[in-house]
Amino acid sequence: MQIVETITEMKRLRLQLPEPLGFVPTMGYLHEGHISLVRRAREENASVAASIFVNPTQFGPTEDFEDYPRDTKRDLAMLEEAGTDVVFTPSVAEMYPERFSSWVEVGKLTERLEGAARPIHFRGVTTICTKLFNIVEPTRAYFGQKDAQQALVLKKMVADLNMNLEIVVCPIIREPDGLSMSSRHVYLNQEQRWAAVSLYQAIKLAEELWAQGERDAERLRQVVIEHIQQQPLAEIEYVSIADTEILEELETITSSALLSLVVRFGKTRLLDNTILK
Amino acid sequence: MQIVETITEMKRLRLQLPEPLGFVPTMGYLHEGHISLVRRAREENASVAASIFVNPTQFGPTEDFEDYPRDTKRDLAMLEEAGTDVVFTPSVAEMYPERFSSWVEVGKLTERLEGAARPIHFRGVTTICTKLFNIVEPTRAYFGQKDAQQALVLKKMVADLNMNLEIVVCPIIREPDGLSMSSRHVYLNQEQRWAAVSLYQAIKLAEELWAQGERDAERLRQVVIEHIQQQPLAEIEYVSIADTEILEELETITSSALLSLVVRFGKTRLLDNTILK
Repeated sequence: MQIVETITEMKRLRLQLPEPLGFVPTMGYLHEGHISLVRRAREENASVAASIFVNPTQFGPTEDFEDYPRDTKRDLAMLEEAGTDVVFTPSVAEMYPERFSSWVEVGKLTERLEGAARPIHFRGVTTICTKLFNIVEPTRAYFGQKDAQQALVLKKMVADLNMNLEIVVCPIIREPDGLSMSSRHVYLNQEQRWAAVSLYQAIKLAEELWAQGERDAERLRQVVIEHIQQQPLAEIEYVSIADTEILEELETITSSALLSLVVRFGKTRLLDNTILK
Repeated sequence: MQIVETITEMKRLRLQLPEPLGFVPTMGYLHEGHISLVRRAREENASVAASIFVNPTQFGPTEDFEDYPRDTKRDLAMLEEAGTDVVFTPSVAEMYPERFSSWVEVGKLTERLEGAARPIHFRGVTTICTKLFNIVEPTRAYFGQKDAQQALVLKKMVADLNMNLEIVVCPIIREPDGLSMSSRHVYLNQEQRWAAVSLYQAIKLAEELWAQGERDAERLRQVVIEHIQQQPLAEIEYVSIADTEILEELETITSSALLSLVVRFGKTRLLDNTILK
């Protein structure tokens, strides 16, 4: 496995990687969710690249950029074990030199949910992904369904701007108790961690009602909210049931819907979602 | 010469074009300025592509999108004559399907001069160029120095977003009397057309003073303004002397500077510039 720190070297090395190339962009501090993306990329491509870069432009000024957990040594061992050929680990100065001032923005879709809660977040995500896609030139890039809105935003960007790659979205990977995996779990104390299972339980409840034929979105939202509210440590930020294309909140679900939610435990925001279809 | 109207067909055809590929994006109604770009592309590359697309998103709501001159038959004959291999002529619906909502924006550099006069202009230019670059995948793309700020903005975008092509900027091509060529000359009546030569004359005056050692930017601006003001049909929009990197207005020129100006004749805005170095 080769480790590359500069854009020039990554572009040079790219020319030697057999086609097709699968790419897994990450912010490091990897868990089984990330590794499932690498395994899928390994299955579907002749070569696999990953990146580790905690992208400052997708964090708001009061968010956890400085504190975001990092463990590059462990990440590299996990990536090698999963069959990665090249890991791109640029510095912030390499990706954002002085006077950097170009941005890629997706409208509408980024105004709701995570975009409403984190105003510059998606601009940071789409800009860094554009840069990484131009540097790595993958055939396919792999993202987790955990960040459901991010996946929709990146698919929209690739379609609108005619980028030459496919965005592949892979299923949420969960802990044994059902909590969706996240690098930010390290922020939770024991009690919060136990309480966090209520997100998955609430989603299961909604899925069961859906399977029984419930199509009233407000009723489904209420079931989720009431279940999570039983946990005194949980602060619900939003519970959304929206269409899967432009994320408009629904009253009645006619075909499919994205049920997504954010719940805070202390300062930690946990995301989870499911597609009702 | 092949003419291609769809993105899918252009991407397919691209795979057959020998490397390196030179690309000349245009809005059609071609003149010798455009053709000089095609000739340069022909000299420097194994294959040459051009595009004709009057890009609606770079026109403001009160600007001349509807009236912009079009003559595709003549354009195609000129491109073939100059040695173009492929011309991409997509429709507006092909480039901007319903619900299109992704944009590429370059900050700072786009706030001044043309960006100040035409608020959404550069966002339209950078977005359509990103799309065209992703569709055509050129090795080099050719632009005229006539639109000096556009050339700087596109170079900045390519550098910031790590795009895999080179922006080549080619000299201004002028009419026999010195007027810089523009598709918008068709809007001028005879008297305006005669008066328009004052732009070039004023630039020559400034260049002469510069050659004699004048480094006071305000003095140079005044010479240009006073000369053009002798033409009663000319309305000066701006005369700028700015640094050639971020277009900040200068008081004293220490190394080089971009002298650029916009003068209106009726509704028609004419641009001209020179680099003092």
